[in-house]
Amino acid sequence: MRTLLKKLPERTYKPRKDGLTMVMDKGLSCREAEDMISVAGEYIDLVKLGFGTSYACGNLADKIKVYKFYGIPVYFGGTLFEAFVIRKQFDDYRKALEKYKLEFAEISDGSMTMPHEEKCHYINMLSKDYKVLSEVGSKDANVEIPPEKWSLYMQRELDAGSWKLIAEARESGTVGIYNKSGESNTDIIQEILSKIPEEKIIWEAPLKNQQIYFIKLLGQNVNLGNIAHNEIIPLETLRLGLRGDTFMHFYEMVVK
Amino acid sequence: MRTLLKKLPERTYKPRKDGLTMVMDKGLSCREAEDMISVAGEYIDLVKLGFGTSYACGNLADKIKVYKFYGIPVYFGGTLFEAFVIRKQFDDYRKALEKYKLEFAEISDGSMTMPHEEKCHYINMLSKDYKVLSEVGSKDANVEIPPEKWSLYMQRELDAGSWKLIAEARESGTVGIYNKSGESNTDIIQEILSKIPEEKIIWEAPLKNQQIYFIKLLGQNVNLGNIAHNEIIPLETLRLGLRGDTFMHFYEMVVK
Amino acid sequence: MRTLLKKLPERTYKPRKDGLTMVMDKGLSCREAEDMISVAGEYIDLVKLGFGTSYACGNLADKIKVYKFYGIPVYFGGTLFEAFVIRKQFDDYRKALEKYKLEFAEISDGSMTMPHEEKCHYINMLSKDYKVLSEVGSKDANVEIPPEKWSLYMQRELDAGSWKLIAEARESGTVGIYNKSGESNTDIIQEILSKIPEEKIIWEAPLKNQQIYFIKLLGQNVNLGNIAHNEIIPLETLRLGLRGDTFMHFYEMVVK
Repeated sequence: MRTLLKKLPERTYKPRKDGLTMVMDKGLSCREAEDMISVAGEYIDLVKLGFGTSYACGNLADKIKVYKFYGIPVYFGGTLFEAFVIRKQFDDYRKALEKYKLEFAEISDGSMTMPHEEKCHYINMLSKDYKVLSEVGSKDANVEIPPEKWSLYMQRELDAGSWKLIAEARESGTVGIYNKSGESNTDIIQEILSKIPEEKIIWEAPLKNQQIYFIKLLGQNVNLGNIAHNEIIPLETLRLGLRGDTFMHFYEMVVK
Repeated sequence: MRTLLKKLPERTYKPRKDGLTMVMDKGLSCREAEDMISVAGEYIDLVKLGFGTSYACGNLADKIKVYKFYGIPVYFGGTLFEAFVIRKQFDDYRKALEKYKLEFAEISDGSMTMPHEEKCHYINMLSKDYKVLSEVGSKDANVEIPPEKWSLYMQRELDAGSWKLIAEARESGTVGIYNKSGESNTDIIQEILSKIPEEKIIWEAPLKNQQIYFIKLLGQNVNLGNIAHNEIIPLETLRLGLRGDTFMHFYEMVVK
Repeated sequence: MRTLLKKLPERTYKPRKDGLTMVMDKGLSCREAEDMISVAGEYIDLVKLGFGTSYACGNLADKIKVYKFYGIPVYFGGTLFEAFVIRKQFDDYRKALEKYKLEFAEISDGSMTMPHEEKCHYINMLSKDYKVLSEVGSKDANVEIPPEKWSLYMQRELDAGSWKLIAEARESGTVGIYNKSGESNTDIIQEILSKIPEEKIIWEAPLKNQQIYFIKLLGQNVNLGNIAHNEIIPLETLRLGLRGDTFMHFYEMVVK
């Protein structure tokens, strides 16, 4: 099929610098993880074990082995980091990262309040041994962060050593860079884009209209995150203009 | 991981008396049932084969074997009971229970009208041979049962021999103890709680905000039902305060 | 179970002329396809590889083998046809159909504008070698086609050689024969029914309320499409009156 259909938008290949897809795993079995990889492995750049599911699921060590076997980076969701930190157990969190021999770590403050200097200090410490993804934005829909704070925090976290910055949306896509009905907060997004290099940002975009928004705004190779395991292929068709929503957009850009 | 992170809300263990999770299976394959158990088996206290799916699915006998092999109680959804009863085939329903060697049976009147004495009579008969789960509430959003009837019916069903009482919400979470937009009918819930022992009730709570509501109201070890097979681990993180929505709630109760 | 429960609405059997269920596969693994078949194979009359997923997924040849092995017809979603046609690569589309030895082909114009004579010409050409499913309706919610055009287009496509006509709704069920909130456009539906033989139409009905609508309107053996792989068994219970929503409807028609 791929040798037949021509003039599609060009996608980047693994290992990707941009055009990343970060997948949310909130409790897949090892077999389900393998299944996902058999269909969509070439598009999965990062897997996040969402919020505290790493603690609750019964197959953690085995599943991490599956992802490692296929060369797919995997990391613990930021809420787990916060659960350790709020209990004054940061050293135990480091032990968890070592125990499972992870190479990536997420640092966030979406479920608790933390002085931003403290967050940057954690980023700085972990970035010596790990690629750090730091997340900006609250999980609480009632906490509003003004646009200029989003870009300021992101810049400081980059300076502290973050590898990528994650713009919060949750699994539901209804907080942070989106409002309660899932629509884009364009003020925040434009402010971030005016200050922070695009390839440094992973936009959480669990809902289809959010994926379309960012693909139309920033192109097929925008970094997107919190993609459900069964939405990776549909997302890829959006990036390629092979779904109604982006079909004419890319036809006009690439073919015409 | 579990040896590292401390001071989480205490959960009950299998076989549980409270803190039950009842899972809705509406047509899983045997392999999907095994997968679910490999990840979350320790949290699955009951599996309901939802509504009439037991009749329609092509793998009934085999799947019941899978659940039995892993020691997980399984039962037919109440709609199947009603389908037999409305056709005056209650004896055939008993044959179905015997044929598949089940130990649990659900009795409901959510899809048909039935005098409450008749329902209690069925409960009484079946409770001699089975652990009976009886469900209160209509599946029709237009049928409103006043709060004091909920508790009255529940008490009578307990007296008739029910092992647990299920508070109706359907797979969608939009009837019975919830309104059409999925929000809790607190009048009904408070009335039930004032009359019926909490450990006797399983609250159907398919939607995340409903699970959060009951966990905050009644604690991590509340009995919850109609949980989708891929939401068991996310629910467990809510019970443990390892997801944003209950993170601070349990931090303040358990750690602080 | 099936020998015990009597007086259910009569269903057709494979190979079906009506009562068809067309399933949307938007990226299943081979194992997931097998799993679906193990539970619901007897109800799966057609599988559509949705929109451009055939291009993006990594297991296309193997998955087509799985469906063929179980005797289940499989075809490419119409968006893929359109992607070839808009690039003036219709000959390459024929090569794709030949390469994977398919017996069915979908022709649509939901993502691009195409003169209706041209569409009918494609139908005419492909219907010499394939069973053609042609889809009427735009994927764009802002494009409204008046009722009499729906029936006119459908009649012309039948005349051009279509085997079945698909009434567009997308995966979301919010365009074409439904409005933005997923409710039925009864004007369009009644106009189609007044002109086109019912067994020629497959109604896309991904949402439960849409399935209920058509089952109540046209009976248990209505042709329905865009059914998610894990909703085949729940749909079958609706057709059989074994779910609350159609329980009394069929009791009154079949038993009473």
